[in-house]
This record gives sequence, structure tokens and C-alpha cells, in this order.
Amino acid sequence: MPTYTPPVKDMQFVLHDVLNVSGSDIPGYDELETDFTNAVLEEAGKLTSEVLTPLNVVGDTEGCRLENGVVYTPTGFKDAFEQVKEGGWPGLDMPEEYGGQNMPYVLGTAVGEMFSAANQAFTMYQGLTHGAASAILAHGTDAQKDKWLPKMVSCEWTGTMNLTEPHCGTDLGLMRTKAEPQDDGSYKISGQKIFISAGDHDMADNVVHLVLAKIPGGPEGIKGVSLFIVPKFKVDDDGTIGARNGVSVGNIEKKMGIHGNSTCVLNYDEAEGYLLGEEHKGMRAMFTMMNEARIGVGMQGLAQAEVAYQNAVDYAKDRLQGRDVTGTKNPDGPADPLIVHPDIRRSLMDQKSFAEGARAFILWGATLIDAAHRKGDKDADGLISLMTPVIKGFLTDEGYDMTVLAQQVYGGHGYIEEHGMSQFTRDARIAMIYEGANGVQALDLVGRKLAQDGGKHVMAFFDLVKDFCKENSDDEGLKDFIEPLKAASKDLQAAGMYFMQNGMKNPNNALSGSYDFMHLFGHVCLGLMWARMAKAANAALASGTGDAAFYETKLATGRYYMVRRLPATALHLARIQSGADTVMALDAEAF
Amino acid sequence: MPTYTPPVKDMQFVLHDVLNVSGSDIPGYDELETDFTNAVLEEAGKLTSEVLTPLNVVGDTEGCRLENGVVYTPTGFKDAFEQVKEGGWPGLDMPEEYGGQNMPYVLGTAVGEMFSAANQAFTMYQGLTHGAASAILAHGTDAQKDKWLPKMVSCEWTGTMNLTEPHCGTDLGLMRTKAEPQDDGSYKISGQKIFISAGDHDMADNVVHLVLAKIPGGPEGIKGVSLFIVPKFKVDDDGTIGARNGVSVGNIEKKMGIHGNSTCVLNYDEAEGYLLGEEHKGMRAMFTMMNEARIGVGMQGLAQAEVAYQNAVDYAKDRLQGRDVTGTKNPDGPADPLIVHPDIRRSLMDQKSFAEGARAFILWGATLIDAAHRKGDKDADGLISLMTPVIKGFLTDEGYDMTVLAQQVYGGHGYIEEHGMSQFTRDARIAMIYEGANGVQALDLVGRKLAQDGGKHVMAFFDLVKDFCKENSDDEGLKDFIEPLKAASKDLQAAGMYFMQNGMKNPNNALSGSYDFMHLFGHVCLGLMWARMAKAANAALASGTGDAAFYETKLATGRYYMVRRLPATALHLARIQSGADTVMALDAEAF
Repeated sequence: MPTYTPPVKDMQFVLHDVLNVSGSDIPGYDELETDFTNAVLEEAGKLTSEVLTPLNVVGDTEGCRLENGVVYTPTGFKDAFEQVKEGGWPGLDMPEEYGGQNMPYVLGTAVGEMFSAANQAFTMYQGLTHGAASAILAHGTDAQKDKWLPKMVSCEWTGTMNLTEPHCGTDLGLMRTKAEPQDDGSYKISGQKIFISAGDHDMADNVVHLVLAKIPGGPEGIKGVSLFIVPKFKVDDDGTIGARNGVSVGNIEKKMGIHGNSTCVLNYDEAEGYLLGEEHKGMRAMFTMMNEARIGVGMQGLAQAEVAYQNAVDYAKDRLQGRDVTGTKNPDGPADPLIVHPDIRRSLMDQKSFAEGARAFILWGATLIDAAHRKGDKDADGLISLMTPVIKGFLTDEGYDMTVLAQQVYGGHGYIEEHGMSQFTRDARIAMIYEGANGVQALDLVGRKLAQDGGKHVMAFFDLVKDFCKENSDDEGLKDFIEPLKAASKDLQAAGMYFMQNGMKNPNNALSGSYDFMHLFGHVCLGLMWARMAKAANAALASGTGDAAFYETKLATGRYYMVRRLPATALHLARIQSGADTVMALDAEAF
Repeated sequence: MPTYTPPVKDMQFVLHDVLNVSGSDIPGYDELETDFTNAVLEEAGKLTSEVLTPLNVVGDTEGCRLENGVVYTPTGFKDAFEQVKEGGWPGLDMPEEYGGQNMPYVLGTAVGEMFSAANQAFTMYQGLTHGAASAILAHGTDAQKDKWLPKMVSCEWTGTMNLTEPHCGTDLGLMRTKAEPQDDGSYKISGQKIFISAGDHDMADNVVHLVLAKIPGGPEGIKGVSLFIVPKFKVDDDGTIGARNGVSVGNIEKKMGIHGNSTCVLNYDEAEGYLLGEEHKGMRAMFTMMNEARIGVGMQGLAQAEVAYQNAVDYAKDRLQGRDVTGTKNPDGPADPLIVHPDIRRSLMDQKSFAEGARAFILWGATLIDAAHRKGDKDADGLISLMTPVIKGFLTDEGYDMTVLAQQVYGGHGYIEEHGMSQFTRDARIAMIYEGANGVQALDLVGRKLAQDGGKHVMAFFDLVKDFCKENSDDEGLKDFIEPLKAASKDLQAAGMYFMQNGMKNPNNALSGSYDFMHLFGHVCLGLMWARMAKAANAALASGTGDAAFYETKLATGRYYMVRRLPATALHLARIQSGADTVMALDAEAF
């Protein structure tokens, strides 16, 4: 049975030593004192490791079931969900007026990593609710907010996102679900939606679906899509639950992983719905959820990598197999532990240096979101908008690869379900797909975000890296970090330059390199975070306070990343600079 | 439901245009005329695509079950196995005196790819039998061969390999299974073996287990391991099946994939066994099976990549989503097919260029095995011995990654089980683990094979690449191939040089780079194969015969590999040259 130890110490290091959150001028950050965040993280850690982790395998083994139209979650999920609600976790970063605790998003993100690591399938029930509530918060009328949010912030009611239909996923302009206006201002929603995570279940009194649909007579394609609130049960104005609405579960999908989450086919048959935001502006409203969701999905990549890594370390220390070639480490035992072997080290260091770098990257991203939302910082908003596809695409690709590495440490024991390592890879796999498949993230990055606001945000990113390197160029303690970061950043700039010079002639020259660019960008971001972490670790060591071994380990892990992982930027650049010629050489018939 | 189209044309191209098998002086190769191999491949293709492919999903969904000590295979497996036996496929490359057809291994390998692509879990029943029969053929007495081989060559009886025990996988010296000598010359085998593929089932009259065990009083560790034939049912001297032997199925493992294969825990309780080969020389005898099995497993990596790729292509051509940015390709439809998008092309080209390169690599390797076995060619034997861990490790890692790419083309539809894309990745995952986890392959390559016979074989490999480049340096039609191959080969040589110079000082400097070296070597091998294929395609085009479009496509696919995939060698070299410092920097406690 896999275990999970919440990385509280590492989160505290990032929040306080690296990001210095309590010293920030972002409203609400003054509350984030070391003791306070520590208490919150310890409490969340207890719940996730003791309650949610043991249910992870249960969810995988049992899955959800549909009986007579009712969806049942796996044994124990309902009780655990009650504990989550009682702890007030779903509303941690939601406004107080709707029952939340109004904590910064950065703290919600740290807590969210623990929840996802402990039990991704379970956590999605509240994650989707958070996303749906955010959309209502951003686009709902006061009456809508008052009606839906209090119950959603507490997770008494959960939420969903309904985009995909059988014939359309990425290309939502092809959507067929219809919304017929009614005299009372409501709409009748009819159509079929698929792949609806947390689509229905037995853990909440109501499910509030946010549904994209087309109002007949509106513009063609994506410009004619509107967003609707469609509850499972209608709700009276006084908040009491009324009649069942015209939405039913057609099926629960059989999936590779996240079996504990009910991924539903939902059939809408003249279901009563209420317009959220403006007519035909549904995509804009949906993107409020999508951006947040994409960062949340990036975090899932990290979370699965972290928990898989922890279990791989335990196994590598316990399992006795072979001898250290440089001299026996366990002379009294029949063999040395796996962890003595260099190739096992390579694997564990890949995982460790990824997870810690990714954690810093996401938490930094979360502070940008807080700066944008709480301070109206437009530069921060632009920068996180640019980096959102990188967080989603790069961290889920890498996170998945890390779960595969962790599984490999177990040998044959990683392939059987008994040890739970297979589940980590099967669960992690979805994160590369949902909320926009990673190829779409790459397209968003190169086709849209790079040139946004005249390329201002990518220039700001380059400046940020350049400034950091300049400020610290004389710091002997950072010499292993600054030069590799400079080189990697140069590769990224060269790739951007290639796109500018060749993408005009033929957009395929840019799009053929979009996936490599997303990874190149991701490596530079992690390189930057490692350099910043190294600086913080050096400062802590110089101050002589705290756990010196922790900081020394941090520096060694960072050096590994700079030497063994960051040089991937050169390969990505080489691929990018080869353009579209070889990629697009064949006619479709030749495949 | 996934489909499979056997790549007969591509196999014929490799066999005849590239490897010129029927012109070879290897005994038996003169039979491999174009028409003959075409007929065999077409016939195998029919069986695999029509009978085995539809059973692949059935096997995955149903799995095997153990009831009252009896193992039942999924619906349809038994009938299909009868058809395979009737066709004589299991004995294709086995000696005629035991009922085989004595065809070269290279033809068996091509046929084997089809079987594995169509249904890996099913094909393992005969694959393991083939391995066990090969070991008996190489190490058995005449009486043993006469007794066991005819039934195994026909697959009336199947075979297994029993190595792993709960506490030892790679480190077999820790083995506890015992073999007590009896007065009649037989042994009583007692112990538990796990992860026994095709361990028991209802498709054959007997199962012949090859079991590693220790004879009490023998040398410690791996030097005291012997190999035994232990049948499920004892067999009288006249060949009739007698009493049940003391081996029983403890459990069928629940696995991530290959559900259709019964992976058993086998309990031996004073089971009657017969020494195969010499006492305490069990590992040597087992390696006869292991080397063949490792190449077979490498082929599985290719096979799953190929079938996943084929289905990804179909989906990419059918699924309408988004528009080609350079101009609509399907103006009458609501959207263009996925295949117009550059990032989908990147993915498909990665898959295609891998599969075709890997096919050529494996078939070339198979000709080396034939040369070694049929001609006693020691150089060929040394070369394939060197490349075996590369074939196993590199092709299964890459093959797995390709199934993940293929799955990604389907978006959300790739994550649900309905389309079968998840199964390809779940099935492909095991190939990175069994027959020696890929980290062990890398260790075998760097720690043993490189220096074998004074480094003679790796030098022969370098010469082979150098000679090819030299001979073709003036060929204008190969200029896109020769230069990248030279550069990649230079990286490989530099890596080898690094090991020589630094591995002496500290073996960890070599072992920390072993995994990267295996991949570097794999890329150079595929680069060489692409250069050879390009030469063959040019020759065919110049001759004006055959399907010009096929050869043009071959050249374009090869150019993609050289430009977009082969440059990975520089990254691997950079990692290797960083040595052990960052890899081994941490104490075990710091993880």
C-alpha cells in the first residue's frame, strides 16, 4: 500500500525562503506568516495522508458504479468528503461572504498539491466545484452568486464543467447542444455531453453543471456558444431543493485511471438552465474556469510525480538487490539496497529535481495569480497567462514521465497493481489530456500567448531571467546555476527569434516546433526556479539558522537539474530550428 | 475497436531491398525468395489481423481467472491457439527433426512482430514456449530433446521461464528455491516463483516449466544455481501424460496490462524435476533463453508502437477538428481532419520513423543471429551480443513512448478504454521491465558488453558505421543521411571514450551514464538503419521498378528521423560526460 508524506518543509521553504510571501504587498499575504502557513499545511497534510491516501487504491479498485440512474462513489469516499467539508478545505481561498476563508490562492495551491497527491480522483470532485464556483463568481449576477455560491463553496453542492461532445473536443465551435430561450428568462438545454468529470455522484445534495450550449439563431461556430448553469435538482428561490431537472447520466466511462472519479456521459433533455454571463460569450466565461483548471492540472502532474517518487525512494531503500560496485554498503545483509546503484540514483534524482522545481514554479505562478486578482497587477496577469500552457503542458508531460520512472524502480513489482505504482502512472496520464490536450497548450503558447500584447509578456519573462543572472553574476555560490540558466534562456530566445523570422513566411514553421518550445520554456522556468532556490538556500546557510542538511540537499538537487536536465533546451532548439520541412513532408495519404 | 494491418510491404522492403536476404550465404537464406517470404508474411498477416487482433480487447477486458486451481484464458483464446498450432506457426524456425520448419530466425522475427502487434498477451504463450524449447535444444540431452521438444515445437505443450522469487528479481543469487537430488537422478524442487508469464492455462495438455533452483551444498550465490525441467504433469517415457506434478498456481497477478496472459505465482512442493545442462551452470543455460527473449521483447516495443501508430493515423484522418492554418483542406466538412495540424504530424512522424527504423534494426539483428547460429560467425555473434541490450532497452523505452504519443492523438478518447489505445500503452509498459529491467540492460551494455573480448565488438560496430559513411560519402542522394549519422556516431565514440578514461577511476562515472549510453547507442543504430534504408530506396527509385511513392515516403520519413530524432545523441553525450558527481552527490538519507 503506497504512503504519502506531505512535503510541508519544502513548501515552507518555497513560500518563505524563496517567494517571501509574508513580506509581499499583495493584499492578504501579510497573514501568511511562517507559523500560520505551517499550521495550515500540517493540518491539510494530516487529512490527506491519513484519510485520503488510503482511499486512493480503494477508488482505483472499486471505481464508480451506475445503478438505476444513480452514481455511487467507492467505499469511504462519502465519509472522507464529509471530513473535507467539515474542515472547510473547499472554501480555503474563496470569499468570506460566500462562506470561504479568503486565503490567497498560493496557499490553496500548496494545499491542493497535497490533496491531488493523496487522491487525485477524489480531489477532482472538489476541484471541479472550485472551478465552477470561480466562473459563477466572475460572471454571475448577484442573485446567481447568492443562490449557488454558498452551497458550492462549502461543497454541499458540487460543480462540473460541460464542454466536450462526442464529435467535438478541442474544436468547440462544432457543438450541437442547444439552449432554447423560455418566456421566464430561463433556457431549455438539450444535447449530449461526454467526459464530464465528477458528473454525478452520491456525495452531495445537488450537482451544479456549467454547460456550454448554442442559442438557436446565434452566430456560427465558437462565437455562438453561451454558458449555462444547469442544476441536477432545481432550486427554489429560498434555496430549498426542488424537482429533478432534465439531466441524466447515460454512462460512466471505463478509463485507464482516476477510476474513483465518475466520468459521465450526461444527457440533457430540455433541462432548465440559466444563462451565466452574456449570450454568445460562453467561451470567455468558461476560460475563467479553464485557466485556473489548467494550473490545477499542471499541479496534478507534480502531485503524482511527488507521491510516486516518495514510494520509489522507500522501495529503493528497502529492497536489497545486488552490490554497490564501489564497495559493499550493507555487509551484514544478503545484498545492498537498490539506492546504491547509480542508475537508480539517476532515476530518483530526475524525479526529485523535477518535483521540487515544479513545486516552486507552480507556487510562484500562484503568487502571480494573486497579484493579478488581489492587486490588479496587469503585468503579473500577462506573465501567468503566458506561462499557463507551460505549467499545464510541461508539468503534466514531465510529471507523467516521472511516475513511469518511479514505477520502473519497482521492477516487476511496479507492473502489478498490488503496490499502487501502476495507479500513479494511470492517473497521471489523464492530466496530459484534459483541460486541453498538451498539443493544444503548445498551440496556445506559440500561436497566441507569445504575441499577446505585442509580445510584451515574453519579453518581460526574458528580462526577469536576465536581471536575475545579472544581479547574481558575481555570486560565487551561484556559479553552477547562472551559466546554465543563461545558456538555456539563450536557447529559448533563439527559438522565439526563429518563430518570428520564419513563422510569418509559413505558420507551420512555428507550429511544427510548438511542442518543443513548450518544453524548452518549461525547462528554462525550472532552471530559473532552481537558481532562485539555490540563492535562498545559500542565504539560509549563510545565516546559520535552520536545517543545514536540508539546504545542502537543495543545492545538490539543483546542481543535478542544471547539469543533467536543463541541457535538453539545446535539443529542443535544434528541433525547432529544423522548421516544418521534414514534419510536413508527407501527403496525408502517405501515412 | 482497434484494427491492425500487417506491414508486409515494409517487411519485404527491409528483408529484400535493405538486407538482401535471399542473396546471403547464410545457410537456409536461399529459400527466402521474395515470393516465398511474401506468401508467409501474407498468411501470418491474415491470421494475426483477422483472428488475433479482435481477441486483444477481449483478453484485456476479461483477463485470466483461477478457479479451484485451474487457470482459464479469455473467451476465444483456446480456439485461436488451435488455429495457430494448425498453421504450424510456433515451429516456424525450429528444427525439422522436432516438427519445425527450420526457417531462418529472421523470418520468424518478422512473423513474430505481427503476432505481438495483434495480441501481445496471447502471443506470449507461444513466445515463452519458443524460449524454453530453445534452451532444451541447446542444453538438453538427446533423450530430453526427444521427450520434450516435439510437443513444445507444436505448442501441444507450452513452456515457461521461472526465475523471479518474491525477494529477488535481478539479483538471482539470493534465490531460495531448492532442488534435492533423488536416487533416480531426478530432483525434488521446492520453493515459490513469481511473475511467471503463461504460468498455467487451459490451452495445452501440459506446461513445461524451466526452473532455476539451488542444489543444497553447491556454491553460494549465482554460481550455485541450476536449471531444471519441471512439467505440470509428469510424462512417461513413451510420451503419455501421467500424474500431476507438485506444482500449483498460488495466484494470478493483477497487472497494469497484458491481462490476457496468466502471470502466475507458482508454488513448487517437492515437484519432480530433471536437470537441464550441468549442475550449477543454470544461469548459462537460462541465458540461451534470455538473449532470444530480450530481442523478442525489444520487438514487442516495436510491435505495440506499430499497431498504436496505425490506429492513431486512422483517427487523425477521420476525426474532424479545427482548420489547417495555411488554408482549409476539407472545405465541404465542418472542420479539417486532425492530420492537417503540424503538431499531430510531429507526433505521427515520431511514431512512423521510429517503427520503421526499429523494424530494420531488429531484422538486421535477426540476420546476425542466423549468421551466428547457422554459419558459426563469431563476429556476428559478438555484435548481436553487444546490441541485444540496446534492442531490448532502447526499443521498449521508445516503443512505450510512441504508444503514449499515439494515445495522445485521440485526446480524451485515448484515455477511455473503448478505443483500445490505453491498452497499447498498458501492454507496452511491461516490455521495459521483464527479461531484465531496462536499467539492467544499460548495466549489461556498459558494464559487460562494451569491454567484451577486449572491446572488439564495439570497435566492429564503429567500423561498420565508418565504412558505410565512407563508401557513400560521395552519394548526393544520401547527403541528408551521412552527415547526421557521422555526428551521432562521433557522440557515441566520445561517450565510449569518456567511460574508458573515467570509469577506471570510478566505475560510477560509467554507470551514471549507462542509461543515456543505451539510448545514444540506439539512436545511432536507427540512424544507421535509416541511412541504409535511404540507400536502398534510392537504388529502387533509380531502377524505376516498384512503387515510387513508397520509396519517396521512405526517404522523407528517414530525413525526419535524421533531423528531428537523431540529434538527441548530443544531449545523451552531455549527460554522460557530466559523470557521477551530481548523480551520486546525496547520501541515501537525503532522499
